[in-house]
This record gives sequence, C-alpha cells and structure tokens, in this order.
Amino acid sequence: MAVNLKIPKKVFAIEGIGIGVTEAGIKKENRKDLTIFKLDEGTTLSGVFTKNLFCAAPVQIAKKHLLSGKPVRSLVINTGNANAGTGQKGLKDAQKICNCLGSLLKIEDCQVLPFSTGVVLEPLPVEKIVNNLDKAILKIDKNNWMDAAYGIMTTDTTPKIFSEQFIIGERTFTITGISKGAGMIHPNMATMLGFIGTDLGIKQQLLDKIIKDIADQSFNRITIDGDTSTNDSFIIMATGKSNIQINSENDSNYNTVLDALSKAASDLSQKIVRDAEGATKFITLQVEQAASKEEALSIAYSVAKSPLVKTAFYASDPNIGRILVAIGYSNTNIPINKIKIWLNDLLIVENGELSESYTEESGKKIMEQQEITIKISLNNGYFSEKVYTCDLSHDYITINADYRS
Amino acid sequence: MAVNLKIPKKVFAIEGIGIGVTEAGIKKENRKDLTIFKLDEGTTLSGVFTKNLFCAAPVQIAKKHLLSGKPVRSLVINTGNANAGTGQKGLKDAQKICNCLGSLLKIEDCQVLPFSTGVVLEPLPVEKIVNNLDKAILKIDKNNWMDAAYGIMTTDTTPKIFSEQFIIGERTFTITGISKGAGMIHPNMATMLGFIGTDLGIKQQLLDKIIKDIADQSFNRITIDGDTSTNDSFIIMATGKSNIQINSENDSNYNTVLDALSKAASDLSQKIVRDAEGATKFITLQVEQAASKEEALSIAYSVAKSPLVKTAFYASDPNIGRILVAIGYSNTNIPINKIKIWLNDLLIVENGELSESYTEESGKKIMEQQEITIKISLNNGYFSEKVYTCDLSHDYITINADYRS
Repeated sequence: MAVNLKIPKKVFAIEGIGIGVTEAGIKKENRKDLTIFKLDEGTTLSGVFTKNLFCAAPVQIAKKHLLSGKPVRSLVINTGNANAGTGQKGLKDAQKICNCLGSLLKIEDCQVLPFSTGVVLEPLPVEKIVNNLDKAILKIDKNNWMDAAYGIMTTDTTPKIFSEQFIIGERTFTITGISKGAGMIHPNMATMLGFIGTDLGIKQQLLDKIIKDIADQSFNRITIDGDTSTNDSFIIMATGKSNIQINSENDSNYNTVLDALSKAASDLSQKIVRDAEGATKFITLQVEQAASKEEALSIAYSVAKSPLVKTAFYASDPNIGRILVAIGYSNTNIPINKIKIWLNDLLIVENGELSESYTEESGKKIMEQQEITIKISLNNGYFSEKVYTCDLSHDYITINADYRS
Repeated sequence: MAVNLKIPKKVFAIEGIGIGVTEAGIKKENRKDLTIFKLDEGTTLSGVFTKNLFCAAPVQIAKKHLLSGKPVRSLVINTGNANAGTGQKGLKDAQKICNCLGSLLKIEDCQVLPFSTGVVLEPLPVEKIVNNLDKAILKIDKNNWMDAAYGIMTTDTTPKIFSEQFIIGERTFTITGISKGAGMIHPNMATMLGFIGTDLGIKQQLLDKIIKDIADQSFNRITIDGDTSTNDSFIIMATGKSNIQINSENDSNYNTVLDALSKAASDLSQKIVRDAEGATKFITLQVEQAASKEEALSIAYSVAKSPLVKTAFYASDPNIGRILVAIGYSNTNIPINKIKIWLNDLLIVENGELSESYTEESGKKIMEQQEITIKISLNNGYFSEKVYTCDLSHDYITINADYRS
C-alpha cells in the first residue's frame, strides 16, 4: 500500500503530445505494456539518465539519438523487460525499435528515443514490440496520460501522475507527467522512469539546464535502498502550444515556470518513494546550516540509507541513537556538539546530546505518523538539502527475497 | 543461529594476562557483564578505534590514556550500556572507573583503558560498575578467556573466541582472542569489540604498525548493515612471556608472527559476520585485478552493502543482475565489458554479460550453500581485496524493529 499517494482527479492533456498505449504481450498477456509518445514539430526535449556503468541498451541509444541534434519526435516505452545487460544484441534490438517506429511515423530513427523497464539480463522480445507498434500508433490521442501511467508500471502498486494548470498573467500553461519506480523483483526491475510534458515553449539550451537543476532536487534526491538502476531516465517535453515562450533565465516568467516544473518533478519523484517496496512511512531528511552542499547531502544520505534508522521508523520506535550513529559515520567532520535534531516539530537532540525536554512518549507519538521529517541543523554554515526516503519493513524483504517462479 | 561459527575445543591461557569476570547487574541481574584484564609489567599494547564522530566516552578516555605514554596494565569492559552520546557525564563516569580500578590495582588511572558496549544514549550506571570492581579482581585468573568471551556479549547468540599455538623453530607462542559484534537492538548496541592476547614480545612501535595493518584486513573488512558504531575498538596485548621477541619487520620471524596475528583477527572479525543479526549465509566478496585498492574496495562494498544483493542471497536466488547493478553504481570507472564474475567456482559473467555456459540451475545450487564467494575479476590492474558480509533476512528486520519493552 502506497503512503498517502494521491492521484489527481483531473488529468489535463498537453497540446502537441499524443499518446498511444497497447498490449504487446511482452511479459504477460492482457497487460498494457507498450506506450508511444508522439510529439508535434517544434517541441523541445531534454533528458537525464542513470549513471550506472551497466547503463541499459535503450539508455545508450537514447543518449546517442539526443546527440544527433535532430529534434525528438517520438518516445517508445516498454515494460516487462529492461533490455539491460544484454550486450550487442540489446543495442541492436533498441535500435530496431527506433528504426521501425521511425519509418511508421515517417521520421528519422534518431528522432525516436527508446525506454525499457522490467527484468534485467533477459533478451528483449523485440518482435513482440515491433509487431505492435502500429496498434499503439492507432490509439494515439492527447487524452491518454492515465493509460500511459498504467502502461509504464512494473511492480508499482498504483499509477503515478501529476497534472496541474498554472497561470501567468492572463495566460494558462499546463504540466502533466507520469513516473514509475521502485520495483526490483522477478528478478530485477530496472527501474525509475519519469516523463513530464508541458505546453510551455522552452528554448533547448534552457531546457537542458532546467532539467538538470530540477532532477538534482527531485529524482536525484530520493533513496529507497541505495541501488541506482541501469535504466533510470527522466524526460521533459515542451511543446510550446500555450504560446508562453521562455528563452532565458532572465525572462520575467522564468521563476514561475521553474517552480511549476519543479513541483511536477518533486511530486512524481516523491510518489516513487511513497510507493516503494514495503514502505509504510514517508520520511524527509532536511539538513540545514551545513558548510557545503556535499556536507548536507552526505549527512542526509547517511541517515536516509541506514538500515537501522529505517527499521526503527518501521517499528515506530524513537531510536534517536541510531540517527546520531548514522550522522557520526557520514564521512564529514562536523562539530557534533552543535547539532540540533527535530522529529517534525519536536526537538530531540541539542548540543549533540538528547534534549532535556525530550520524552520517549513524545518521540513515539511522532514516530507513529505516516509522514515524518527529520530536521538536522548543523550550525556550521548556510547550505540546506532535502532527501526523501521510506522505512524498511518485512514486506521489503518478502518482495525482494520472493523467488522467481 | 550463527553460520558455521566454530568454538575452539581448547582455549590456551596467555602467560602474563589475568582475567576476572563478574556480575554487576548493569542492565540485567545474574548476567556476567563486567570483565577486567590485568596485564603483567612489560606487556605492550596497541589499539584501533571507531571513526564515528559520536565516538563514545570510554573510547575517548582510552585514546587519551594511550597518549599518556604510560604502559597499559589493565582493561575494564562492561556490557549492558555503551556510555555513548552521554556528554560530559559520560566522560566523568568512564574516568571514574579508571580511577577506582587504578587505585585498587595500585597503578595510575592512565594505565587503565575502559570499554563499554550496550545501549546508546542512556546514562551509565557507574556505581554498579565501581562497586563490583573488587569482586572482579578477586576472580582474576589466566584461564578465564571463555568467561570473558561470554562477559562481553550483548545480543550475540554465541561467544566468539580464537585460540591457537604456533611454532617458531623449537619454540611455541600462543594467541588467544575474543570478540563481540553485531547486535544493535534495545535500542542500539554499540557494538564491535575485539581483544587479542599473545605471549609474544612485540616492540611498541612495531605493534602499533601491525595492529593497523591487521585491522585493515579484518575488522575493517566486514560489513553487516553499513553502520559503524560509536564504540568499535580492537586491542592487541603482547606480554613477551614466550621469550620470543620481535623488534622490527626485518626480524626473520616477523612474517610468521604477522600471519598468526592476522589469522586471529580474521577469525574473530569473521565470527562477528557469522553471528550477524538474522544472518543465514556468510558471503565473501573477492575483487581481483583492480587498478587500485580503492577501486577494489569500492566495488566490493557496493555489492556487499546492496540490500537487493543481500535479499537475493537470503532467498538463494541467483539474481546475477543485482550484482551487476551494484557494481555499476560503485562510483568507479571500470571497463565493464572486461568483467568476469564467479559464484564459488561457477563462472556467471564474462565480458560484462551473462556467461554462455551459465545455467540458472547451477547458480541456484551454489546460492543454496551457506558459504558463498563472489569473485569479481576486473582485468584492470593488479590489486585485490576481500570483504566479508552476510545476507539480509526477515530476522534482521524483526530484531531491529523489535520495540523496546
């Protein structure tokens, strides 16, 4: 069961983006597993990808196609197979899909980006995908975002979708996006995908910068079990159909646009944590007054990744010591006697020791909640960072130790 | 249940080291929880300690006393309370224990090293310790190593002891040691302790070097959940009573001695992994042909710490993909198409892909064993490193999520 994961009541279409979703029988029959995005001419697109050395074949091809400089006009996403660790055959398969879709849509193959998610180390059933591309194309419609949210799921328990309209002066722009996450079973899901569409017009170089900044604060700030998958990809597509055009950071509407896109990316990335395997709690690590960004992140991740901290949260046990221990091995050199820590609004540590006002009972009351912020103030500088994670439960072990049948 | 953890049939005393163990009622009644080591004059001693910033009070005092330059003549170890995160009071308590034991043994307080293990963030019941020092002194005897192995346990399921005699020419020397580990419950155990005694004579400066080298290959090469505790300490005591004296690395017997001490430290540290919380398998990560020590360790730890790899081993599921994924995010830049991986003697990955000879059945057969070596050959240089870990099971979650009653 996902933790407070809300599905928007209304999903807005993005003018200039058509979506077709179909069943290709890649891993299971009667399951939507093949999704195509078709982008109108004039759309700008940027992507960020996994840094895992075993970067999957579709990621390698997508990066290559982006480097061609030709405008991307289509995305093709399959679930059920990650096409990762598949060597030369994997690359050929991913390329073949782009070639076929390109010729069906009458665009160049380098204008297609492929994405795969699902089982690692198994050959991609490429014919099933290629043979169903025409069926997916027939279904293309701008109102299919929810279908796509289902179509990219693997072991996600719920679709993840963001959709909102924003106002600039008297004009409106729309952002809709989908993501999928946190499933690594049977035997490995390779995992995180995020796609955001908007009818804003955003100049290519600016979008390239925006996506990096946004990813850094959203998809790069979540940790479930510390494993970075081979297929992680995050894409923003800007069609320009709203007639709101942003060309530089000096544009008077830049901050409004950046905030709106950040909101979408934060929402979609946090939904992945909320639906993490076995998660029963959503935990925000907020490190403040650090001497550097690196110091803040090192401490935040040290706490967020500690199995002992995560099991304590699962048990609703205010094991403050485990938080201190994790800070202590964070590979930083902070003055520990200046540290203050809060659980939500409750001060639990002061001067590096248990706060005198703290009681076990008050700690337990907060630990029982589903949304908990651990705020760590270092009194060591001016940098702040946030990282999002979840608890570590029996279900995580059950799901990940579940033998492939 | 510990994994293949063997208790030696015969435990040899070390001439020059007396041990007294008693019940001080620190956390529970009728439990051996207070241990004293008394060292004959002429004994050299070296120690290595946790690098956790929240280093516990006894560790701080032990380091201070070692810096005094006066020969250490006694150790005092309590379980049931780690005296960690206890601020100024904690330091005073640890010092008080040294003062009292010093005056009872008629040595200076700086000749006593204190050690504590047990609950974090709770005040040490110092009076219970101080009031029972005389009782422990009365029990001092050279044959009490097994009592001490029990006396330092926290949630260990079994005592951890090494004892062996070695021969140099016609002379014999003896090494006996104890360790305790892997319990972080109720609410935090602060954790790893190791004490090795030998009747070798080893010059102080040489022992200082030896302990670092040995710790680096033993106590610093084990990972259970990636958490470094606030109290980790490892001590070697060399009494010289065997009349075998080693003064420098050029001594003809140096390698024999180093190998023997390494064997003891490896055995005691690996026993901690074998008795890790919830462990059902003992896993060796062996990285070979790396370009540097750092590269080898980075890859070994990345795999050893991956919850996805560890749950796969728990499930006896040959999830090769998870190993590749963990190598891929190891923050190295190795040529992945040169990687070979073996599970014990079974080649599973070649040229960075699943080996053609590999079958799921053969992989599963090895995954079902209790002792598994993952050998990763990088074909990238001449450095090798080994790291020891265990699987991640339901019992780990149960133990660590168990609420304090």
